[in-house]
Formats: sequence, C-alpha cells, structure tokens
Amino acid sequence: MSVFLEKLEMSVNASNSLVCVGLDPDPNRMPIQNVFEFCAGIVDGTAEYSGAYKPNLGFFEALGIDGLITLKKMVEYIHDRYPGKLVIGDGKRGDIDTTSSRYATALFEFWDFDAVTVNAYGGRDSIQPFLSYEDRGVFVWCKSSNPDGGQFQGERSRPGAELALFERMAEMSTEWNENGNLGLVVGATYPAELEKVRELAPGIPILIPGVGSQQGDLARSLRAGTERGFANILISSSRSINYASNDAKNFSQAAGKAANMLREEINAVLNDINRQ
Amino acid sequence: MSVFLEKLEMSVNASNSLVCVGLDPDPNRMPIQNVFEFCAGIVDGTAEYSGAYKPNLGFFEALGIDGLITLKKMVEYIHDRYPGKLVIGDGKRGDIDTTSSRYATALFEFWDFDAVTVNAYGGRDSIQPFLSYEDRGVFVWCKSSNPDGGQFQGERSRPGAELALFERMAEMSTEWNENGNLGLVVGATYPAELEKVRELAPGIPILIPGVGSQQGDLARSLRAGTERGFANILISSSRSINYASNDAKNFSQAAGKAANMLREEINAVLNDINRQ
Repeated sequence: MSVFLEKLEMSVNASNSLVCVGLDPDPNRMPIQNVFEFCAGIVDGTAEYSGAYKPNLGFFEALGIDGLITLKKMVEYIHDRYPGKLVIGDGKRGDIDTTSSRYATALFEFWDFDAVTVNAYGGRDSIQPFLSYEDRGVFVWCKSSNPDGGQFQGERSRPGAELALFERMAEMSTEWNENGNLGLVVGATYPAELEKVRELAPGIPILIPGVGSQQGDLARSLRAGTERGFANILISSSRSINYASNDAKNFSQAAGKAANMLREEINAVLNDINRQ
Repeated sequence: MSVFLEKLEMSVNASNSLVCVGLDPDPNRMPIQNVFEFCAGIVDGTAEYSGAYKPNLGFFEALGIDGLITLKKMVEYIHDRYPGKLVIGDGKRGDIDTTSSRYATALFEFWDFDAVTVNAYGGRDSIQPFLSYEDRGVFVWCKSSNPDGGQFQGERSRPGAELALFERMAEMSTEWNENGNLGLVVGATYPAELEKVRELAPGIPILIPGVGSQQGDLARSLRAGTERGFANILISSSRSINYASNDAKNFSQAAGKAANMLREEINAVLNDINRQ
C-alpha cells in the first residue's frame, strides 16, 4: 500500500469517520472576524469527528496576502495539533507540465498539503508533476457537483464509444496511478455518475463533496462509492459545518455537532451496507 | 465594443505589437536573485515592444508568501508605470460556482488583473463569476500547448458529431460571451486546431502561448488566428524572453531584444497576410 493510502486509512480509522471538513472562510458568513480564529474554531470543534480537512484555496486567496498567511498558519496548526489528520489543498490546479511542476512545488513544499485536488483537462503530463510526489495524494476533478457540471463532463467521447468525458477522465487518469497516490473527485449531487466512476476505478479513493448545502444524496453516494473493508472514500462537507451556527460563542461546538451528525449518518449507512 | 476589447485593442495599437510577455520567475534560471527586480527588469526591457504581460501564478506561488507579495507589487508596478498595458493573471482557475466567485474576487479585486485565464471543465456556472466582471477579460483554456493536451481535448464528442472536446469548448464557451469579454487560449503548438477554433469562434480574442521554447508554429498560428482589421490575438512568450540572457547586467536588454524580434517577426507575417 502506498504511503498516501496508509495515511488515508489511518486518518479514517483513528476518527472512525469518513468526514472531511471543508474550510471555506467567507467574511460575509463568519460569526467572528478573525479568519485564523474562525478556522481554528472549526478545526478544534470537529477534530474528534473527522479525519481530514480541506481548505478551499479560493476562499483564502480572496482575502489577499492576509488570507494566504492565514492559510499557511492553518495548515501548520492542523499538522501540529492534530497529526495524522489529512490536510487536502483544494485548488483544482492544472496547467502545462512546466507550470504544474511549480504548482506542485507550491502545494506540497510550501503549503505542505498531504493531498491536493487537480484539474486534468491538460492530460497526463499536466498532472504528472503532482503524482511524482509519491507520498502525497492527488485527487483528479472528475465529475463536479455543480448544476452545469455535465455540459462538458457529460459529453460522450468518440462516435460509437459509450463513455462520457467524466468516465474517460476516471478511466484514463487511473491508468496513470503508478505511485498508488491518485484519487478522484466526484460530487454527491450525481450519485448515478458516482456509481459509474466506482465501476471504472475500483480501489481508487474518491473525495465526495456536495452533501449538506448542495443537497447531494449521501446514502446513495456511500453505497456507490464504498468498497468493503477499505476506507477509500471521504465525504466532504463545508458550508453546513462551517456555518452551522452564526453565534460567535458556540460556532465551534455547533460545527462539531454537525460533523458528528454527518459521521453518525454515514456510519449508520455503512452498518446497513455491511449487514447486507 | 466591450471595455475589455477596447483595452485590448488600445494596448496592441499603442505598442504596435501582439506580443504578450509571460512572467515565469524561476529561481533556478534567473540571473539575479531578487524576484521583483528580475520581473521589473523584464517588464522595463520589453515595455516598448509588448502590449501585455502575463504573470504565471504557479511560478509566484512556488515562492511562498514572499512570491505572492512580489506578484502583488508587480501588478501594481505595471499598472502604475505602464498604464494601458494589459496584465493577464495566468492561473487557469475554475471550480463550482460559489468557489469560482471567490477566485474571481481574488483575481480581479485583490490582484487587480485586467484579464485571467480560466478552466471551464466545470461548465458555464463555473466560469460565470469571472465573466460577470464586465470590464475584465476571461480567457478559457481551450487547446493546451503541451504534448499530452490532446488526451481529453482531442476526444470526439457525441457519436455522430464531428467536434472534438476543444472544439466544443470553443463553440460552447463563446455562446456564454454575453458581456463581450470572453477569450480563448490555444497553443501555437497546434496550428491546425487553432484554425478550427478561429472558424468556430469568429471575433473572439485568442491568447496563443507556445511560441519560443515550446516551438509553436508562429507564422501558421498568425494566419490561423488573425482576422483582418482587428487585434484579436495575443502571442505569448515566456521562457525565451525571460531567459534570453543569464547575464545579471544585461538580461533586461536581452529580454527587450527578444521581445522586439518576436514583434518584428509577427509584424512581417501580418504584412504578408495583408498584402495577399
């Protein structure tokens, strides 16, 4: 098993949770002003109930240099305070090879993420620089959770072929998984597509955003994505945990409660699946 | 004509140049250590010969917070010192709508780019937040310049249909151009594909990287991309201008010379085209 898969499995086992908490600090919604304190509050409140954190780079970049300094402090905070928890840099980067190589340096060496999300529109050489970091995870954005996600991703490839673009993305990118560190991102809002991705990419970890605010189908996503005996999916929720309460005094506890509820909901479905 | 197209035309006319100078500061190749001084040297040396600059975000992010502070200073420097020159933030961002909205805030409000490159794999709602900034340009990554770019982009869409993914990207995204601020990115390394894109997207500005180090076909790209009487393409070159010399004393002049040579080469081809 690759270093990354081991890390993933350990983080899930230690927390008995497939929950990944997204960090989307939005000044218009945060109950307190200080971004670091807000994010630390979310992390502290949820640490018992989740094995992974997913800072969303766009939300930090929107806050300028201060936001980026906070992101750096935040990654360090999680690594220091909660060793073993995965920190996934959600930036969906992807460019031609020479540029992707610089993004990989940024994400893995400067920010020190355990894993990242990438965009593989540029083909294999555009994500190889990320995959070359053998001990880090690389989640390829395969089927997105947004309403217009199907416009290109749903396109059928090649006359006569039966695969849509997202299926080709799943199939082809998993062929590049020489280091055992590749994963896929598939939105919970498209459970039928998730079933197809799991079929095409057995054994590949899938990061599943879109439960909570985006109203993805949790139970069906779990049934579609889980493979027995191995923790190869993460269920990511951001807004419904980050903004579970707008009370400055108890947002951290409220986030923990929301994360724990999600964990229990997930584990109840997993128990059902395992009983069958 | 949209504010962005006017800006683009003015920047090209003022410099009599379709050259866009990429800024790819690489510590392993820079003749001087200071990133700001290096970039300023490239800008000062080339300002007479180019209408646009394209900082490549990956190269700045790889340098951590210092690199990002330098990027901010650099954009300000170009706006202050060379008003009218377009500054294109090359970050290929793209995510679900709520996140793209934060990236748009970052790129247009914090960094203050005149235009950006984006990745439209997520469909229309994933790039709408960028397009909504009516006075800024949004270049959709359509056909990339790297060797593996065709793996997904070359896929035929729909059985029976004759369009490859990059052609659908060109066709569909230009339908979203309600504000007249959308452009496309097509590598000079694939001139036949550029011809197809121009056919599918008449009147749309095309940003063409890949000449110079990547050895794209300049003359054929110009013939494919140009539409008479309107400055609707930019030819972007990074490495062969940034690293024209590794001499700390004359890298700025050498960059200027390289940019001017590219400008003259372009203008000679344009003269040929106009004579025909």
